[in-house]
Amino acid sequence: MSGGADTAPGAFAIVGLGLIGGSMARDLAAVGVPVVGVDRDPHARAAASAAGVLRQALGPEEPLPTDVEVVVLALPVPAIPGAVRSMAAKPAAGERAPVITDVGSTKRSALAAAAEAGLAHRFVGCHPMAGDHRSGWAASRGGLFKDARVWICAGAASPEAVARVAALWTALGARPEPIDAATHDRLVGLSSHLPQAVASALAGALRDRRVARDALGRGGADTTRLAASDPDLWAGILLDNADEIVLGLETIESRLLDLGEALRRGDAAAVTSWLRHAAEWAAR
Amino acid sequence: MSGGADTAPGAFAIVGLGLIGGSMARDLAAVGVPVVGVDRDPHARAAASAAGVLRQALGPEEPLPTDVEVVVLALPVPAIPGAVRSMAAKPAAGERAPVITDVGSTKRSALAAAAEAGLAHRFVGCHPMAGDHRSGWAASRGGLFKDARVWICAGAASPEAVARVAALWTALGARPEPIDAATHDRLVGLSSHLPQAVASALAGALRDRRVARDALGRGGADTTRLAASDPDLWAGILLDNADEIVLGLETIESRLLDLGEALRRGDAAAVTSWLRHAAEWAAR
Repeated sequence: MSGGADTAPGAFAIVGLGLIGGSMARDLAAVGVPVVGVDRDPHARAAASAAGVLRQALGPEEPLPTDVEVVVLALPVPAIPGAVRSMAAKPAAGERAPVITDVGSTKRSALAAAAEAGLAHRFVGCHPMAGDHRSGWAASRGGLFKDARVWICAGAASPEAVARVAALWTALGARPEPIDAATHDRLVGLSSHLPQAVASALAGALRDRRVARDALGRGGADTTRLAASDPDLWAGILLDNADEIVLGLETIESRLLDLGEALRRGDAAAVTSWLRHAAEWAAR
Repeated sequence: MSGGADTAPGAFAIVGLGLIGGSMARDLAAVGVPVVGVDRDPHARAAASAAGVLRQALGPEEPLPTDVEVVVLALPVPAIPGAVRSMAAKPAAGERAPVITDVGSTKRSALAAAAEAGLAHRFVGCHPMAGDHRSGWAASRGGLFKDARVWICAGAASPEAVARVAALWTALGARPEPIDAATHDRLVGLSSHLPQAVASALAGALRDRRVARDALGRGGADTTRLAASDPDLWAGILLDNADEIVLGLETIESRLLDLGEALRRGDAAAVTSWLRHAAEWAAR
């Protein structure tokens, strides 16, 4: 950057204008940050432009403007390593290399890709605990991150890069919290990915047994709601975190087997105790 | 009944002033039906009396007034057969025997108890698809049954008894639908009892793996919400419907094993297809 541009606010590039990226673009634009929107889908680019939240819309092959200071990779988990590698080109002399961050639901693979690409010092992995079973620009909305926890995996990033990314989330009303990538993937594997797998297992079993969706009451609807999530998106997440998910599934299977055995025995004390073990946790 | 009492509206006895019974009492009182409330818990009797919804509050050993035309057994599933048997005493000469109904989550055992007690002609099994993970009088509220489906298992009841019970639910804004008891228990075992078991299995597994309740996002909270249900109440339901629940658990276990194998193989097509099988059903 040169001349007066040094004092103008730098732009943010949001790569992927889906639920998370689109919502970030809306919130950033609302606080006056120039947003460059990148998406391979021209319809998403057009919709975001029409909503007035972009300074500029680009396809994924087009070069980013030189005043971009932060690049947010808001892409499906399997697309993140490739996108990180594509950022590895050295900036021209006199230009500052942007900070890179992602918002994927797993963190080990993203940080590993950044390290392999020689970008570890300016890559900060993030995971906002926001969103729902919907996806795409149409699901994006302002205020999505208000009061949401955002896991921050600094890895080997510079303190400046970490501070820049934490400030981004604070500006969006979120609560950034540091965590290491392995702990993150284990925790989120259990608290988010495993519920997705369980909701889908229940929904799939009800389909197998020919139960109609509208036969469910509110409780059954709650328990299967996540099953409506995007299958491609979630296949990428579950596969990327497969080791942790497999361990979680084994814990669930063990619980289900215990219940089945207690029911076969007609053991009221065991069934009550099994339910109470869960209820004490759930009522907290 | 004698004299002018023949033209007065008969009373309803609600046995069990919990979430379902208490809500029925509120709605019946609101439309001017005299309600006799029966509960073994003096606090529930006092609370219902204080709410002004009862003509009379009784303990479970006290005789019902002779003008009671419908007795609603709003008791936990394991208590219903005994309560049905206690209704078997023949009414005195000149008195009409009341219609008896229940609101339990299983229907085969209730209808079998009525048949064994010689009450099949005036017993109609019901199951309103309303309520949530809360229980007790404090959770009761007016309008709980508005637009709710109510399964009606007529068994060998007289047409008059069935019409009387169906009219009760229609007056409460609910939608009575006939079903046979075996079909009911299979359907509800899958659509209601299995979600309860799955939510509790997930919550129990998360407790086993030391995940804090507040680490969950909205999706995980939805999926485990039912786990907070009353363990004693639900143990009775699951045990009473154990044969169907065990079959349902086997279907779930099969689904979970398929996912685990696809994840171990790193088979993206299989994981996506597994998720899509559930998503197509859930999005309906």
